[in-house]
Amino acid sequence: MSSVISPLQKARAAYAPKLPPALAKGANARAVEGKPTAAAGDVEKIRALFPENFGSPMVTFEAAPGKAQAAFNVGVILSGGQAPGGHNVIAGLFDGLKSLNKDCKLYGFLKGPDGLVKNEFMELTADVIGAYRNTGGFDMIGSGRTKLEKVEQFEAGRKNCEALGVKALVIIGGDDSNTNACLLAEYYKKTKAGIQVVGCPKTIDGDLKNEYIEASFGFDTACRVYSELIGNIGRDANSAKKYWHFIKLMGRSASHIALECALQTHPNAAIISEEVAAKKSTIGEIVDYLAGIVAARAAKGMNFGVALIPEGLVEFIPEVKALIAELNDLLAKEEAAFGKLADADAKIDFLKKRLSADKAQVYASLPRTIQLQLCLDRDPHGNVQVSQIETEKMLAEMVKAKLARMKAEGKYSGKFSTQTHFFGYEGRCAAPSNFDADYCYSLGYTAAALLGAGKTGYMSSVRNTVKSADQWIAGGIPITMMMNMERRHGEDKPVIRKALVELDGAPFRYFASQREKWAVETDYVYPGPIQYFGPSEVCDLCTETLKLEQR
Amino acid sequence: MSSVISPLQKARAAYAPKLPPALAKGANARAVEGKPTAAAGDVEKIRALFPENFGSPMVTFEAAPGKAQAAFNVGVILSGGQAPGGHNVIAGLFDGLKSLNKDCKLYGFLKGPDGLVKNEFMELTADVIGAYRNTGGFDMIGSGRTKLEKVEQFEAGRKNCEALGVKALVIIGGDDSNTNACLLAEYYKKTKAGIQVVGCPKTIDGDLKNEYIEASFGFDTACRVYSELIGNIGRDANSAKKYWHFIKLMGRSASHIALECALQTHPNAAIISEEVAAKKSTIGEIVDYLAGIVAARAAKGMNFGVALIPEGLVEFIPEVKALIAELNDLLAKEEAAFGKLADADAKIDFLKKRLSADKAQVYASLPRTIQLQLCLDRDPHGNVQVSQIETEKMLAEMVKAKLARMKAEGKYSGKFSTQTHFFGYEGRCAAPSNFDADYCYSLGYTAAALLGAGKTGYMSSVRNTVKSADQWIAGGIPITMMMNMERRHGEDKPVIRKALVELDGAPFRYFASQREKWAVETDYVYPGPIQYFGPSEVCDLCTETLKLEQR
Repeated sequence: MSSVISPLQKARAAYAPKLPPALAKGANARAVEGKPTAAAGDVEKIRALFPENFGSPMVTFEAAPGKAQAAFNVGVILSGGQAPGGHNVIAGLFDGLKSLNKDCKLYGFLKGPDGLVKNEFMELTADVIGAYRNTGGFDMIGSGRTKLEKVEQFEAGRKNCEALGVKALVIIGGDDSNTNACLLAEYYKKTKAGIQVVGCPKTIDGDLKNEYIEASFGFDTACRVYSELIGNIGRDANSAKKYWHFIKLMGRSASHIALECALQTHPNAAIISEEVAAKKSTIGEIVDYLAGIVAARAAKGMNFGVALIPEGLVEFIPEVKALIAELNDLLAKEEAAFGKLADADAKIDFLKKRLSADKAQVYASLPRTIQLQLCLDRDPHGNVQVSQIETEKMLAEMVKAKLARMKAEGKYSGKFSTQTHFFGYEGRCAAPSNFDADYCYSLGYTAAALLGAGKTGYMSSVRNTVKSADQWIAGGIPITMMMNMERRHGEDKPVIRKALVELDGAPFRYFASQREKWAVETDYVYPGPIQYFGPSEVCDLCTETLKLEQR
Repeated sequence: MSSVISPLQKARAAYAPKLPPALAKGANARAVEGKPTAAAGDVEKIRALFPENFGSPMVTFEAAPGKAQAAFNVGVILSGGQAPGGHNVIAGLFDGLKSLNKDCKLYGFLKGPDGLVKNEFMELTADVIGAYRNTGGFDMIGSGRTKLEKVEQFEAGRKNCEALGVKALVIIGGDDSNTNACLLAEYYKKTKAGIQVVGCPKTIDGDLKNEYIEASFGFDTACRVYSELIGNIGRDANSAKKYWHFIKLMGRSASHIALECALQTHPNAAIISEEVAAKKSTIGEIVDYLAGIVAARAAKGMNFGVALIPEGLVEFIPEVKALIAELNDLLAKEEAAFGKLADADAKIDFLKKRLSADKAQVYASLPRTIQLQLCLDRDPHGNVQVSQIETEKMLAEMVKAKLARMKAEGKYSGKFSTQTHFFGYEGRCAAPSNFDADYCYSLGYTAAALLGAGKTGYMSSVRNTVKSADQWIAGGIPITMMMNMERRHGEDKPVIRKALVELDGAPFRYFASQREKWAVETDYVYPGPIQYFGPSEVCDLCTETLKLEQR
């Protein structure tokens, strides 16, 4: 812990997160079961892989007088990248368990799933929890990216749980971590280990959601931080009137963050990867689209603007994806000869001559810095490091070159100066917004209720979140119900279907209906920073995505 | 204006900024004059250059029953880079003028000083003002960087003011803009133009302050936005425990922003340019210092951290400054031969061979990308573009190389992965904090009071700002009093002395007393986003710099 607590953190610690009404009197609520469930796809395969848990009913909690429950110990694990509100899930879980029986104990496994396997843990007492209520970050117990998928790991975990008297695990993570939570639940049920497993849906990327899970936590807060900054930059652009800001936003595959930020701030352009993939756009077409907007604004005397670019874009452009695949093959095959070339230009020429004609053309169209990046910055396996590509700079440079050609043809006569930005780490550990503080606390509290009701293989679910919390519905969704089979690394695996931006979904359709106006007008919205105090219309918001989806 | 106003902007519009008590009943307050003043230095030269205004007394306002004043028209100009609160200065000026006489009119000259010269303006009515109260940005009337220093400009301005019946100008700007406001005041007094000129101290850089001007507006808000982000990143670093974040902060010359952000967030390292200059540090020494901290933390198992780097750093490193000067000369002289070299490596070699031995050595020590940047990215005059140098990446790369050497020598055995950031545009147009909202509104209102009192050549001054606003003191400082002569572009010029970080001042001394602890411990503070509602201890803050300076 730091020696100094900021005034905001101090004041915010006192915030009491809202709970769904069914849990208002404690986690010992009545679990109402629905009909047996199936799977999102490949039903028979999922049934065969998860015979113990397949078919479990959906659960909804109803307020009920609490019955006495025996005390039991629980372990909690944070898995994967940080998302605002993780500490509140743990606080909700803690309070929920204590409402079941004040002698329940909560252990935090340290540094992610590794802590379970390697038996690194700490007891989470009321004092520990108290210091982290409503804070950002995962620093209470740390997180990690180890995947729980092997029997040796499951067995090591079982042994460590037994030593601590832990009868249940709560795994807070994204789609893969929840898939693995389901594998673990299945294994512990099959081997009669007596350890329940419940998951909680976390990821700022917003790609863990479906018919039953309305949102992954952290998405709201992270998008608000990025939108604060985009709004400020829009105001700066509209004041200075001399820069185009190309802003890359975190989100490795889905473009939910870019879309939500666009809905909040009305930029002049926002590229959505899923649309690029669906239209099979070329990089040249994307550059032409952006240059067209720059030129249209310049024609109206506005040589400034804001463009949003999703981090995962390059892998959604079919021709660039194909280029990268061929580069990886080529560099592996020609490693010796390539390695001998001393000069950067010689390396680029070497690749241009050996790539197939269409790939060579795409490669040649990229700025030199990106050409270099593609042949020099490789990972330990020799592969191109896609996440290192500075897409925002690449596009800014290519748009500039395109505008120069347009100028030569008399089709453009403005000025084009750029500033580039990448926002990601700025938002992953922000203190949770009221929405995320409430949602996370409720997810954790609901997880305690699911454990109290004896459930395993479930994901904690809080629904109707577009309404105020007194209308939220707490329950549990069998994880198998959200699964289908997908090809991963050459194998068919059971996975929770990743939610990409749906082009026929309400959020994208609304964006698409507005973007031409936003492109040529200056219609920036300035959301400002997250407010934790003050009028409800300022503090108690939910994302535009959620509002449009649930409309 | 945008079609959509965010909920926060809507709620915040209703905020009524606080005023110094002397102005609580209107701007028609009693101006109490002190003794005649001198200058900050070169007293006789300043007296000779400003015979009309030199020696004016300091002014302090006292609450007094308002006397009837005749209506008069005023023009306002935003000059230079954006700073949060500019719109509130204009709102305070407007309300102050209306309190003098409801028939006073306020005109905004558009796009900075150019608007005055070119007669581009708009009337600022109550409706216009109302739409911009407590908002960020300079988009109400725009800003510009034209310097008012020529008689032709002054005369064009006079003519345009006469046409509008404008009897007074308020110029909102940094040190240079206020210097020029003083030149303009002197000229208009000398030529009996009947136009008063008053300045207001603006700049996020915080370098316009002295014994009489406690702070420039915008510094508080901008530093809070950057500190919010640095705090979030610190939390992320401490959660993921795998990255060193090198964060460059805006501020072309002074390091006040980096220092204030360090005081707010307790990073593991913060470089202060003024200290680098005073110690005549080499770039190698800076790299060694940072690598030493990385190694010390790694030895304690912490392969993560946060380092702050001021934007203006490279020009404060004597050997790099000398290198850049020699490069500029060399490239000018050898332009033809250099231009013929097709290859990047050949260009670098060309420079290495022609630089003097010590400069060549410094040049050779820089990462290749920076070597390239220094010879390729030149401005229209052929000079190296210092502001384009990615200092944060340069240092990250050089620290990495240093750590590799230390590892080979057995002096370091950690992992070093970096993320780099540059924060500047994110904060310049943020909606003003309560401090800046109040301070700016008070500066504008005080400017109206100075005009009402018939003053010219003054800077609006609000003091005792470390206390609550009911103890603030409104007044005016003769601009000549803050001037001395400095060498600029080969000429001796009267200027307001730029306030750099003072190494014997309280803010730096406190930082220096803490930094060794912050380096090896993880003592991050998480200030969170600016709050506009809620408890006073969260909303009504002033900078750590100001608190330490005024203690």
